[in-house]
Amino acid sequence: VHHASGRHDEKNGMMSRAKVLTIDTMNPTVKKVEYAVRGPIVARAVELERELSEGMKKPFSEVIKANIGDAHAMGQQPITFFRQVLALCSYPELLSDSTFPEDAKSRACSILNSCGGNSMGSYSPSQGIESVRQDVARYIERRDGGVPCDPDNIYLTTGASDGIVTMLKLLVCGEGATRAGVMISIPQYPLYSAALAELGAVQINYYLNEEKFWSLDISELQRALDEARLYCNPRALCIINPGNPTGQVQSRECIEDVIRFAAQERLFLMADEVYQDNVYAEGCQFHSFKKVLFEMGPEYSETVELASFHSTSKCYMGECGFRGGYMEIINMDDDVKAQLTKLLSVRLCPPVPGQALMDLVVNPPQPGEPSYERFIKERTATLSTLAEKAKLTEQVLNTVQGISCNPVQGAMYSFPRITIPEKAVKEATDMGQQPDMFYCMKMLEETGICLVPGSGFGQREGTYHFRMTILPRTDKLKILLNKVQEFHLKFTQQYS
Amino acid sequence: VHHASGRHDEKNGMMSRAKVLTIDTMNPTVKKVEYAVRGPIVARAVELERELSEGMKKPFSEVIKANIGDAHAMGQQPITFFRQVLALCSYPELLSDSTFPEDAKSRACSILNSCGGNSMGSYSPSQGIESVRQDVARYIERRDGGVPCDPDNIYLTTGASDGIVTMLKLLVCGEGATRAGVMISIPQYPLYSAALAELGAVQINYYLNEEKFWSLDISELQRALDEARLYCNPRALCIINPGNPTGQVQSRECIEDVIRFAAQERLFLMADEVYQDNVYAEGCQFHSFKKVLFEMGPEYSETVELASFHSTSKCYMGECGFRGGYMEIINMDDDVKAQLTKLLSVRLCPPVPGQALMDLVVNPPQPGEPSYERFIKERTATLSTLAEKAKLTEQVLNTVQGISCNPVQGAMYSFPRITIPEKAVKEATDMGQQPDMFYCMKMLEETGICLVPGSGFGQREGTYHFRMTILPRTDKLKILLNKVQEFHLKFTQQYS
Repeated sequence: VHHASGRHDEKNGMMSRAKVLTIDTMNPTVKKVEYAVRGPIVARAVELERELSEGMKKPFSEVIKANIGDAHAMGQQPITFFRQVLALCSYPELLSDSTFPEDAKSRACSILNSCGGNSMGSYSPSQGIESVRQDVARYIERRDGGVPCDPDNIYLTTGASDGIVTMLKLLVCGEGATRAGVMISIPQYPLYSAALAELGAVQINYYLNEEKFWSLDISELQRALDEARLYCNPRALCIINPGNPTGQVQSRECIEDVIRFAAQERLFLMADEVYQDNVYAEGCQFHSFKKVLFEMGPEYSETVELASFHSTSKCYMGECGFRGGYMEIINMDDDVKAQLTKLLSVRLCPPVPGQALMDLVVNPPQPGEPSYERFIKERTATLSTLAEKAKLTEQVLNTVQGISCNPVQGAMYSFPRITIPEKAVKEATDMGQQPDMFYCMKMLEETGICLVPGSGFGQREGTYHFRMTILPRTDKLKILLNKVQEFHLKFTQQYS
Repeated sequence: VHHASGRHDEKNGMMSRAKVLTIDTMNPTVKKVEYAVRGPIVARAVELERELSEGMKKPFSEVIKANIGDAHAMGQQPITFFRQVLALCSYPELLSDSTFPEDAKSRACSILNSCGGNSMGSYSPSQGIESVRQDVARYIERRDGGVPCDPDNIYLTTGASDGIVTMLKLLVCGEGATRAGVMISIPQYPLYSAALAELGAVQINYYLNEEKFWSLDISELQRALDEARLYCNPRALCIINPGNPTGQVQSRECIEDVIRFAAQERLFLMADEVYQDNVYAEGCQFHSFKKVLFEMGPEYSETVELASFHSTSKCYMGECGFRGGYMEIINMDDDVKAQLTKLLSVRLCPPVPGQALMDLVVNPPQPGEPSYERFIKERTATLSTLAEKAKLTEQVLNTVQGISCNPVQGAMYSFPRITIPEKAVKEATDMGQQPDMFYCMKMLEETGICLVPGSGFGQREGTYHFRMTILPRTDKLKILLNKVQEFHLKFTQQYS
């Protein structure tokens, strides 16, 4: 019998071996990864749900998860046409079923014809199904008023996250003072900080201006970059527009400034545009980085390297579970593009049902087709309800003393600033907890409402926030906002 | 106007900037990644297909892709029951359609009930849908004759590849002489070498014994390990059983020896068991590492760290496009498990349709249910056809002078050894090409058959192989095998 590294275990008298993989011997970069959107507070929410279902008494009857942009989980209905086509693609025998509309059938046939053996069960090319990439390119051209799009620049992805991580992976390199740095906004969506930690790249923070509706100031970009150049090699600039968690929608002028800045400072631009249809505020409009780049003329459109990301998970469809997405890549070096394609081939392909769904998003029913009216009705209803909820959330939160909320111009979240009394800050600090984590944890225990503390996204020191989705059904959202209000007052009194 | 790093472009008189991201400045580990299964030979096959479709004359009328285990693309039909349930889950209005069998409806309802908002469009928990993990655990218990399985040890994944890469990610650490090393078989499935290159870990090769049906010798494991200890820190041992590309099925005795070896040498065991239903040869049987580990008693079952991987892509279902899979993790340190769960949360969740499909694979129709007979008929037909094709492939290839093929005991590939004349070896070497790449490229150009050269999987120096799937329809497979035969004779004559 072999016991190369055995040690005697007193308790059961058996030989036991030290584990190969322990917290001390595992990959140290993985340990640095943090992802607040599904962090400890969500784990506790799941526990509370279980306790409730087991009949345990709580000061609430239901856990409301407003921590994540998960539209269907909050009751949003899928687009009928999309699901009809997916059912037809899954089980093509339904193509002879007369209850399905003809346009759904023809979309399904064209998707299946692009699949090996006419089956969604076949691998697709690693870059994605060719006809889907062509449809994506035509969609981008329509969206951007005719700016040309080459399907060879389109890569289908497993949700937008997959594309973002892949692009960051290409960019990281170097050690010590030449280690690659990537600029991200603060507050940010924590996928960015998590990926950078895992890849061992330097996170360069630039702060959005909360006083000006979370807008982006070029002078702040410059400050962050100049400081970072002293200790790393800044290579890329990430922008989230419409903003997550901040909900701001960038002006055209701001985007132009950002592009000029990236060109001047030689930064690869990454534009996270997954909320491109989620724009609610009057006077706000979505401008894609691609369109603005091309309208700035060849000096920019032929040189600035840009990757932009989209997804099936947000906008009016909210199909998170299918993990569909694409990225468009502009001005990438051909050799690097070949490396990217090779890298993607190792994982074989993005999920084909997600690719099919992406195809429907970029090629929805057209006027004159049987499903057009129903599609428009469903899409409009979802988007206008979201706009109402964005407004309602801002209004109610701003009535609360000690909560101050910027307008939710777009995306799916409010990110209000909260005043936390000094006594509470001290109690949290003594417990080794961030004060806004302490606040959100208390709110969860007392009200069943699950929010994400601002510290999970980053914020200026000494300020506190939480992120709350605007996704709950309107009646539930009202209850939720009232409960937040009550909780905040009680919490403030308790710690004053 | 800003031109921090502008240079004058003579051709169009415009300022152009050097790219931020070039082959010289990109992540160097990505450049080291290779993945032959979708390498240059497949790119050329796709080109040839396009040329054919454009009417270009070729010495063949069709490209046959025998490079990848993509069953549906080769004409294999999906299991009806699985697709019925997926259609019902995609478009639940079909639950009132009387043409769907009741058991399909009840499976769909139970999957939807486990989804947030009863929709596959919701995110699932990052570890996977709880009820699916429970079904996986019960499947493993049945498969392993009652050895207990805890659903908390099950992680649903985006295909098996995702799980394998994630586990390797946890294991890598260290620099220089303490850099983590991972033992992989040669020949191997190139996901392993690709992932290790990307992660910057040391690949430790152990050679399978071609003379003994590609079996695994413990003495060879020991040799490889002892040598590796001089320059790295060996941490894990990867096994593919049934073998890819080699098709061998490991004996129970061999698995016991491997487990003893891993215990003695303190290696984390990774068992890639995605072909667990693909066993054809008489006298061969699939033994899971988990089952053998537990039958070896607590000295092993309570200490050896094991991750095993399964997928919806292979076996009788062949649903590659859905990217479904799971891993079971045994004896993992609790703190590491928490890190694993956190790491997975960043990517939110595996695709929900793939999770649904995995659920159906582990919980198929039962005796007495309306879909049972059809399911058994379809499954049996697919598996017995595969068994015939495995035998046919071996037999025909072994009739060819200069080709020698081990029995395809399991999985989906033959990996015959080929004799390449010295003159051809020289011509290839002069072109800077691997001789078997030269051989396969010529075969593709002359016959339209797309195979993968053995050099893409690794082989003993001076030996040459190719991997060919056994998936083409029997009539097509016969034509393909005849063409390979003809080509080999012609090639041998030409270079003799």
